[in-house]
Amino acid sequence: MTTPFVPPGRVWADLPGSAIPAVTSERSLAVVPVGAIEHHGPHLPLRTDALIAERVAAAAVARAASEGIDAWLLPTITISKSDEHHWAPGTLWIEGTTLLDQLVQLGQSLRITPVRTVVFVNGHGGNVALLGWANRELRRRFGLRSFAMPAGIVPAGDGTDGSPDERGQGIHAGWAETSLVMHLAPELVSPDLPPRNVPERIAGMRHIGFNGRPVTFGWTSDDFGPTGVIGDPTGATAAAGAALFDRGVAFVAEALAEIDGFEFA
Amino acid sequence: MTTPFVPPGRVWADLPGSAIPAVTSERSLAVVPVGAIEHHGPHLPLRTDALIAERVAAAAVARAASEGIDAWLLPTITISKSDEHHWAPGTLWIEGTTLLDQLVQLGQSLRITPVRTVVFVNGHGGNVALLGWANRELRRRFGLRSFAMPAGIVPAGDGTDGSPDERGQGIHAGWAETSLVMHLAPELVSPDLPPRNVPERIAGMRHIGFNGRPVTFGWTSDDFGPTGVIGDPTGATAAAGAALFDRGVAFVAEALAEIDGFEFA
Amino acid sequence: MTTPFVPPGRVWADLPGSAIPAVTSERSLAVVPVGAIEHHGPHLPLRTDALIAERVAAAAVARAASEGIDAWLLPTITISKSDEHHWAPGTLWIEGTTLLDQLVQLGQSLRITPVRTVVFVNGHGGNVALLGWANRELRRRFGLRSFAMPAGIVPAGDGTDGSPDERGQGIHAGWAETSLVMHLAPELVSPDLPPRNVPERIAGMRHIGFNGRPVTFGWTSDDFGPTGVIGDPTGATAAAGAALFDRGVAFVAEALAEIDGFEFA
Amino acid sequence: MTTPFVPPGRVWADLPGSAIPAVTSERSLAVVPVGAIEHHGPHLPLRTDALIAERVAAAAVARAASEGIDAWLLPTITISKSDEHHWAPGTLWIEGTTLLDQLVQLGQSLRITPVRTVVFVNGHGGNVALLGWANRELRRRFGLRSFAMPAGIVPAGDGTDGSPDERGQGIHAGWAETSLVMHLAPELVSPDLPPRNVPERIAGMRHIGFNGRPVTFGWTSDDFGPTGVIGDPTGATAAAGAALFDRGVAFVAEALAEIDGFEFA
Amino acid sequence: MTTPFVPPGRVWADLPGSAIPAVTSERSLAVVPVGAIEHHGPHLPLRTDALIAERVAAAAVARAASEGIDAWLLPTITISKSDEHHWAPGTLWIEGTTLLDQLVQLGQSLRITPVRTVVFVNGHGGNVALLGWANRELRRRFGLRSFAMPAGIVPAGDGTDGSPDERGQGIHAGWAETSLVMHLAPELVSPDLPPRNVPERIAGMRHIGFNGRPVTFGWTSDDFGPTGVIGDPTGATAAAGAALFDRGVAFVAEALAEIDGFEFA
Amino acid sequence: MTTPFVPPGRVWADLPGSAIPAVTSERSLAVVPVGAIEHHGPHLPLRTDALIAERVAAAAVARAASEGIDAWLLPTITISKSDEHHWAPGTLWIEGTTLLDQLVQLGQSLRITPVRTVVFVNGHGGNVALLGWANRELRRRFGLRSFAMPAGIVPAGDGTDGSPDERGQGIHAGWAETSLVMHLAPELVSPDLPPRNVPERIAGMRHIGFNGRPVTFGWTSDDFGPTGVIGDPTGATAAAGAALFDRGVAFVAEALAEIDGFEFA
Repeated sequence: MTTPFVPPGRVWADLPGSAIPAVTSERSLAVVPVGAIEHHGPHLPLRTDALIAERVAAAAVARAASEGIDAWLLPTITISKSDEHHWAPGTLWIEGTTLLDQLVQLGQSLRITPVRTVVFVNGHGGNVALLGWANRELRRRFGLRSFAMPAGIVPAGDGTDGSPDERGQGIHAGWAETSLVMHLAPELVSPDLPPRNVPERIAGMRHIGFNGRPVTFGWTSDDFGPTGVIGDPTGATAAAGAALFDRGVAFVAEALAEIDGFEFA
Repeated sequence: MTTPFVPPGRVWADLPGSAIPAVTSERSLAVVPVGAIEHHGPHLPLRTDALIAERVAAAAVARAASEGIDAWLLPTITISKSDEHHWAPGTLWIEGTTLLDQLVQLGQSLRITPVRTVVFVNGHGGNVALLGWANRELRRRFGLRSFAMPAGIVPAGDGTDGSPDERGQGIHAGWAETSLVMHLAPELVSPDLPPRNVPERIAGMRHIGFNGRPVTFGWTSDDFGPTGVIGDPTGATAAAGAALFDRGVAFVAEALAEIDGFEFA
Repeated sequence: MTTPFVPPGRVWADLPGSAIPAVTSERSLAVVPVGAIEHHGPHLPLRTDALIAERVAAAAVARAASEGIDAWLLPTITISKSDEHHWAPGTLWIEGTTLLDQLVQLGQSLRITPVRTVVFVNGHGGNVALLGWANRELRRRFGLRSFAMPAGIVPAGDGTDGSPDERGQGIHAGWAETSLVMHLAPELVSPDLPPRNVPERIAGMRHIGFNGRPVTFGWTSDDFGPTGVIGDPTGATAAAGAALFDRGVAFVAEALAEIDGFEFA
Repeated sequence: MTTPFVPPGRVWADLPGSAIPAVTSERSLAVVPVGAIEHHGPHLPLRTDALIAERVAAAAVARAASEGIDAWLLPTITISKSDEHHWAPGTLWIEGTTLLDQLVQLGQSLRITPVRTVVFVNGHGGNVALLGWANRELRRRFGLRSFAMPAGIVPAGDGTDGSPDERGQGIHAGWAETSLVMHLAPELVSPDLPPRNVPERIAGMRHIGFNGRPVTFGWTSDDFGPTGVIGDPTGATAAAGAALFDRGVAFVAEALAEIDGFEFA
Repeated sequence: MTTPFVPPGRVWADLPGSAIPAVTSERSLAVVPVGAIEHHGPHLPLRTDALIAERVAAAAVARAASEGIDAWLLPTITISKSDEHHWAPGTLWIEGTTLLDQLVQLGQSLRITPVRTVVFVNGHGGNVALLGWANRELRRRFGLRSFAMPAGIVPAGDGTDGSPDERGQGIHAGWAETSLVMHLAPELVSPDLPPRNVPERIAGMRHIGFNGRPVTFGWTSDDFGPTGVIGDPTGATAAAGAALFDRGVAFVAEALAEIDGFEFA
Repeated sequence: MTTPFVPPGRVWADLPGSAIPAVTSERSLAVVPVGAIEHHGPHLPLRTDALIAERVAAAAVARAASEGIDAWLLPTITISKSDEHHWAPGTLWIEGTTLLDQLVQLGQSLRITPVRTVVFVNGHGGNVALLGWANRELRRRFGLRSFAMPAGIVPAGDGTDGSPDERGQGIHAGWAETSLVMHLAPELVSPDLPPRNVPERIAGMRHIGFNGRPVTFGWTSDDFGPTGVIGDPTGATAAAGAALFDRGVAFVAEALAEIDGFEFA
């Protein structure tokens, strides 16, 4: 067997199939950005989540690879479980079960390669539960190791990083996402930012809430008003976005390193 | 139309169908305990999660009702998504998609009643992602309000409540669950408690972990050894279980009160 | 390996998982009560079928066990295929295919135990076809032996047991079920029994009918009037219910004994 | 609108689509023969059930039509739920859920016609449960009236019609089916009839059994030996088959008449 | 083992199951006619496609067998993917996924026989894509060889065979199908033929079109007018149908011969 | 309502959701590139089909837009129905039914926008049947107009465009695809081109074949040898690729113009 042709870079799909058995191994990490195409208010592009996930994952893979970790960037899942924005024209969404099938079939595809580890870098909160579920399917069905993480870092919310106090509710099209897109694709951000739309009632609750609160709840984004914003985009800046991006990349790269050395017990 | 017969209590299925339109309303909360029948080590019954969820939910419904909240106890879902214990004889599990179908069809059943709110009180960590997903399906498809919460309270882990330091890994058949079953059904607990089985490697990680850590991962319970325990059951007592039970009931009752007054915005 | 802890009784889910391989064998019978939560007229609780199935099965398992048969009581399936009552508020029903999936996955769970035999004790006529189908799936897919039987005995209908002549149409919330609930849970039965509602036209037919007639037909319970009763509950008594219960338990216990010795050829 | 072209006969699929609204009405009965292609021992063709169902249904439709009943013969379902013969080469079978989908979609097709009634004439015992289920789906989903009946008549088993005593176990490739095919397609019957293969153990049971016994059980046909026969084909004759055929046709025609006048209440 | 009984002819389902392993081999071709029951204008029967597919396949199997090719005729699939005629009363259609399941399960049935080759002879254009898909499923899942072909030959359209110029749009109930049914079942053809209904706009397009054009498009037959005809039935004759039939049979028989000798490389 | 923010370009997902109702209309064309990630021999990247489809579609959308056609580029479907390459490590494939679900759900997403037309520009032959099927689903279920076309042009094969004679079998990783990637992403093409691998036996057949032949057949790419090439990549050049690309873009742009004016009748 001759030496396979291997083009430069860490992009899985840039490789010819013949190179996969040669350049990947049990140590390889298959990193899958998971985005969304969904309404992000009047000021951000539909592909906000896909953009952030893909850019963070690509940068983190490059950084991890430069540190000796055998990470590979797989194609971004652009359209995902955005059913909470189903009411908003422009959103492209699939049923959760369809996405789950896709992810299980990704495991089916990978199990004939040397790769034993899948890592989802997720830009869309609506996928978190599904990715947790998928993690287990990939482990139980195929014996793969599977991980999921957010593509970004939650802003401090206490002023230390310039972020406004969104009362922990800045989950969609708020300060962080707006800043990130200002950094990554400024031409796609409207100069007119929509006003703060923080669900103040929920913020004031004790048990019910989006993150960290013990009682979860079903919602669609129009439950919180017509703009599709949940948070406070005012005050977002490209500079803040650059800082958030760097922190996101650093976090994902660190997580990849931890995954590289992961053992169950 | 004559006055319907209404037996005492808050058990949905004790009512005749004819009473449902009369005694329930838009204010009613349909509370569904969600358990599991799964391996819980050599010392706890297979129905540990079902027992805890059902008992906590029943007590919390009674307490909430005594405080004027129109809560109703629906039948417990006993068998659920326990695929992480699929390898352990005795575990009775269904595919997540089957459970999701069940929950969606519960919403289909309820939408012809006056009830607009479903509350899942969940005793099995393996169902958390699925219930989050189900919450949204019930809202999107049927316009219901839907909530999910744990049946219990995480032990302090710092000695203030007598709990051992399980390093945040006491997620299955550890101190809390063992104490709770000692309180609720002492005859079903083995006098010989298995040894501590805390995944120390994972406990020492920075990003990857079970709860609160940002990187989730796929696992089955045999990834952590053969006993089916993840945590430290030694030191569990019925008295501690009684305290945990009371705290769990108080938490769920409070949450039901918050749900009673819930509005999105 | 140490001796596993085994609590008293014949309840599968009371056992720790560790005990299953030790206390069960190829001779064990996994007995599954199958109920329903469905409209049973203005006088009976929604859980009539679940109550009867569970109570008959538990008593029959105890009796069979006392006679040396290794029967185990599995968790009751409470919510099942009640689509014929889909129109009646309070009914909780799932699609037949969802229930079929559950039963197949029960077989999947059991096949890693020593148990080779599943027995459904069914309180809801609407499940009969589905259980016949499930029997075959369990045999074909997993090589299990599988059986299904009614939880009760058809009343004589000729006065010898006090039952009214329901013309063979007393299939739902009639004399037998009303008497049984009067016996098992009298506090849940309305003192006002609804009037006789026997489908007299169908009773007079030659080929078409519910049971025993060669031509089956599709129906929902509102095809026979608004009360949800198909039969004649008037004249039901707790004493008759006690007798029916005893006959039901005796029948199921006898059937378990026959299953215990069952061989195909 | 011009008068549609209507060819002679009662065959649905012989009509042009344009004739359906003109020649059918709420009184019309859509009669669907349901057969099977499955191993029927070494002496009978694989299509035994399809042959019998189609021939009986066609004759009964003709007879009913001659008596003023607006019955129409739809295409035979030849391949059905023969999973109990899955082990036998030559059997062509589909999953029950696939057949159920087909039947529901038949209802979907018919609901845009004037026809409100579907009648299944079934030649394969393995379909009975499924057809009972399908009956309800067609009623609940589409408001159709739906009926299912066997294509044949159970032999007396007591000698009065010449049938052997198969002890109620002559359910597959026994005296009745062998005689019927001798009558309908003698060239397809082997001159060498296989020996009696009655499950004598089951015949001697009290509760467990194929038909009429209260305890059903899962089986595949190889559970009873390698020939694929369950019953006693010896003694079968074409004359007996002719008599059985006539009785079957008479039964189905009578049933169609009863269906023609059917009302729920 | 004794010699199995084998009746005359090439009809799979005429054989007893016991004969299949004896008379079939790796060389055998399982030929499956695929028809449809769908609106074919006011002049042709609903079963036009089923009639043509079955008659052509039967004749081609006979011819091929006479030339030493071990072809067997399996039961016709009568009801198929006719969703483009879903609007027309009389059409009996199933979802494509249901038909795909059926075909995969046909492969599942055949894989326990000696037969390694399936051949679909298709009378309905709406099935072409699905059969292409099914071909691959049968190969990938079961290692079968699988082929699909039309039951007929496209008319010349240039007058050399008497056919009118339907501009390549004579795809449904046009000259060819009308002539074929005039030949095969003249009593089922209306003496009043509907007028030409050729989609002239589409005929004049450059890229978009039904056959051979590179751009395919979604349509239902009512997109082209109310008659259900797409083509020009005027001028159809039984003589032309006889010629088309002969050409179709010759084509299929030749194709079977080519399949008989088929090797991938 | 204020004027929505609209960034430059024709990329759907660059728009904010708020802009969709304002900038799209019934005239808009939603253009979806459909690629694949699959083994393309030792010399081409796994993403060959995705690369070609996306680049051709983007260029054609730009050209069409410059000619006044309201075309929008939707996200590329990168992973699709590549089951014929399931055996080759590196291939990422999903089941056809999963892709079909995705496409139907795309229609579900679009139906709440003003857009009435979907256009698939497809780079992977294995998707052709599925896209034809999807076209109809989108029309029948949602009333959309739907079209599918290849992203490229078949080489002449007669030397007029420099292409070798691949005997009509150059369907995968042959001269055309190799030339196209040399043009679009030369750094991803191995300098060592694999040898010609034309299925000569099939080329010599009369009826059976890949394209244009009337008899289709099931295959996986390893049926034709181990390299994953079906065709003749030798002789491919970037210049030829540039010409093929221009022809492909011109074809798709022309087709978009034809679609813009499309009416059924």
